Amino acid sequence: MDKRIFLPQSEMPTKWYNPMPDLPTPMAPPLDPETLEPLGPEKLSVIFSNAIIAQEMSQDRWIDIPEEVLDVYRIWRPSPLVRAERLERAIGAKCKIFYKDESVSPAGSHKPNTSVPQAYYNKMEGVKRITTETGAGQWGTALGFACAQFGLDCTVYMVKVSFEQKPYRKILINSYGATIYPSPSPATRTGAAMLEKDPDCKGSLGLAISEAVEDAATHDDAKYGLGSVLNHVLIHQTITGLEVKKQMAMIGEKPDYLVGCVGGGSNFAGLVTPYIPEKLAGEKIQFIAIEPKACPTLTRGEYRYDYGDMARLTPLIKMHTLGHSFMPAPIHAGGLRYHGDAPIVCNMVAEGMVDAKAYFQTECFEAAQLFLRTEGYLPAPETSHAIKGAIEVAKTAKAGENVVFLYSGHGMLDLASYDKYMTGEMTNFELPQADIDNALKECPVI
Amino acid sequence: MDKRIFLPQSEMPTKWYNPMPDLPTPMAPPLDPETLEPLGPEKLSVIFSNAIIAQEMSQDRWIDIPEEVLDVYRIWRPSPLVRAERLERAIGAKCKIFYKDESVSPAGSHKPNTSVPQAYYNKMEGVKRITTETGAGQWGTALGFACAQFGLDCTVYMVKVSFEQKPYRKILINSYGATIYPSPSPATRTGAAMLEKDPDCKGSLGLAISEAVEDAATHDDAKYGLGSVLNHVLIHQTITGLEVKKQMAMIGEKPDYLVGCVGGGSNFAGLVTPYIPEKLAGEKIQFIAIEPKACPTLTRGEYRYDYGDMARLTPLIKMHTLGHSFMPAPIHAGGLRYHGDAPIVCNMVAEGMVDAKAYFQTECFEAAQLFLRTEGYLPAPETSHAIKGAIEVAKTAKAGENVVFLYSGHGMLDLASYDKYMTGEMTNFELPQADIDNALKECPVI
Repeated sequence: MDKRIFLPQSEMPTKWYNPMPDLPTPMAPPLDPETLEPLGPEKLSVIFSNAIIAQEMSQDRWIDIPEEVLDVYRIWRPSPLVRAERLERAIGAKCKIFYKDESVSPAGSHKPNTSVPQAYYNKMEGVKRITTETGAGQWGTALGFACAQFGLDCTVYMVKVSFEQKPYRKILINSYGATIYPSPSPATRTGAAMLEKDPDCKGSLGLAISEAVEDAATHDDAKYGLGSVLNHVLIHQTITGLEVKKQMAMIGEKPDYLVGCVGGGSNFAGLVTPYIPEKLAGEKIQFIAIEPKACPTLTRGEYRYDYGDMARLTPLIKMHTLGHSFMPAPIHAGGLRYHGDAPIVCNMVAEGMVDAKAYFQTECFEAAQLFLRTEGYLPAPETSHAIKGAIEVAKTAKAGENVVFLYSGHGMLDLASYDKYMTGEMTNFELPQADIDNALKECPVI
Repeated sequence: MDKRIFLPQSEMPTKWYNPMPDLPTPMAPPLDPETLEPLGPEKLSVIFSNAIIAQEMSQDRWIDIPEEVLDVYRIWRPSPLVRAERLERAIGAKCKIFYKDESVSPAGSHKPNTSVPQAYYNKMEGVKRITTETGAGQWGTALGFACAQFGLDCTVYMVKVSFEQKPYRKILINSYGATIYPSPSPATRTGAAMLEKDPDCKGSLGLAISEAVEDAATHDDAKYGLGSVLNHVLIHQTITGLEVKKQMAMIGEKPDYLVGCVGGGSNFAGLVTPYIPEKLAGEKIQFIAIEPKACPTLTRGEYRYDYGDMARLTPLIKMHTLGHSFMPAPIHAGGLRYHGDAPIVCNMVAEGMVDAKAYFQTECFEAAQLFLRTEGYLPAPETSHAIKGAIEVAKTAKAGENVVFLYSGHGMLDLASYDKYMTGEMTNFELPQADIDNALKECPVI
């Protein structure tokens, strides 16, 4: 068996899979934050293109990938499926371990799978500029890349503390031609008001979202782009799981365990949801979601309606939540610090279709370093959670079984975190139940 | 035609090509730095393994790649050959442009092609530890990765100014389990002496070489590894050109122009030397070497015997040189700052088999940014020279012709250089002839 399993470009999937029609329980509708009534599409059209709103609400099982999007996907897709036999040997696994390598994209993560169609659909509807927020910087990089491909302007509001601590991310996003503001910025009313109140404010993801949304809502030629959580984002990410299906078939194998890390849930859903039909048909296949113990949304959150952001500006969505006012500890996997999760993933968790597990960050960095020394590549801190999860599953999996995990991104711009790990300066955070209870008290009763 | 041309792992070359038997003029022998007489293999065995010395002097046209080395190569090889059609369109090229993507290796460059066999041969001969120097850090990363694969210890002497300016590289090398010393270090007599003379000394590549060589020469269980220049290194790099041959054949095409950047010369030689038989047989195929105007070894250096290092510790080799005491300007492409070049490459230049061209660094960064915005990926500063060279060739190449360049590495750890470029703080260096003349005066007359 080849170590790297390459799907020919001619075999790349040409449709995304939409899991919503196949879910045993229909999706709960998003609610208007003002009226708490189900939200109409017209409210979303202020910040999203029509094509994206249609996908967000679609009940079509298959959605054609536009030829122009396929053409950009071909820059790096199909991504390799890799047999991690060195890792298998190091942990004494009896099963086989494979990883789907999404770090090979230009932006270094799975995020361009959705930034590219988002840029395309906006371009088709005459939009000139896309706004977004970015925390650690992965999503801003991916959207910058996609906008460069379609000749769109791109405005990124980057949480000021990250803007200052991660200058490399800022330079990379700039290099693609995007404009970056540290958030809070004077460019929006929200940002300006915050700066007037506190000129030294270091920002937050919630605030950056508010700035990006305001920018899009107040400019006719601009729309907003989101990198995870929403249904259309998860649909775009299914390209990875659909490729895995074909790649496993090429070598005459099937996955028994599918493992991914969960922040907003898009990379995990992209890998596992294409296997929903098989699972519902009774095939023995386990979906395993890995999250940090410092932000244990799926393992300890409550399944209920909550706001997507701290400022209560977004629609309410039904999800596992730690409360929209919950502020996760500053773990290194910035992409996993979200109080909620994608409604599609939460629906599956509520149905008992997903096993969720939480690990401490030092356990995950230990797994990442083992991966580096055996398989050679440096994982992103977020990805280290998927590796830890896969290793734990593989230790008890039987001979003949297959563990497949999603390698969501490389860690080349996260080396400072590895230094903290190696020098013993990395702290673990076990969340007190009272913190969760308190934050959940602020959720609206619906 | 697929954008990414993947060679199946079953088709990966299993022999390296040794160009030495095919060169029209035999290689001039290396000379002992003390006696100035041709150097015997016994002198080299203090710091190199026997297998490597045998390759250094070999006249065998084909050298078997050991199965254990092939097994590690399969972590990332065969690397993709990619059609750069977006770049073609952006510059209005009539020809096709392809790039051989060596940035996909775990270390992010072509360097593991030689670090892996070097680690393997040393392991086979009972060596426990490999020492080396690193400037910008690419080679130290590659050797760290290779030593982790074979369970060898690795000691890297990193030029102190880089050690301090590039903390990410240091962390990455550490993560593979290697030990790093900033050079000058108290770990060697050479380093300790320098520190006693100047406690604030920031080091130089020449000094770091001296430390690494001393460390290997004074410890029975240690040998030394070099990342470029020498014949065995160039032989290992031919895996790239041999793969390109097969990949071009897969799509029914042949290269008309092969382009690579030249520092020590190994990535360039790896791409072009497998095409020497075709060239000597009269096929129209041009080998184009690109170097920085700040260090114009092939375009303005003299072809003569010179030392490999500033301290005159290495054997003398016949090469194009700017003089061993020449100190190149601090350009961002640290890997291209070498006063000489690989003897194999220089032999070919002297035979008129290679066209060498030099460009300013801002021209190369401009080309790199165009590549980033069209093809999506961020090139290393060294690689930007190959891109600039390929673009210039492609502008005048005819329809039906093919330009192939070697994409030697990614720039994820070089983003500070892009910032300097974008903010207009990057300086160009045109070398005065008097500087070259003065440095050449110090070369020995042989």
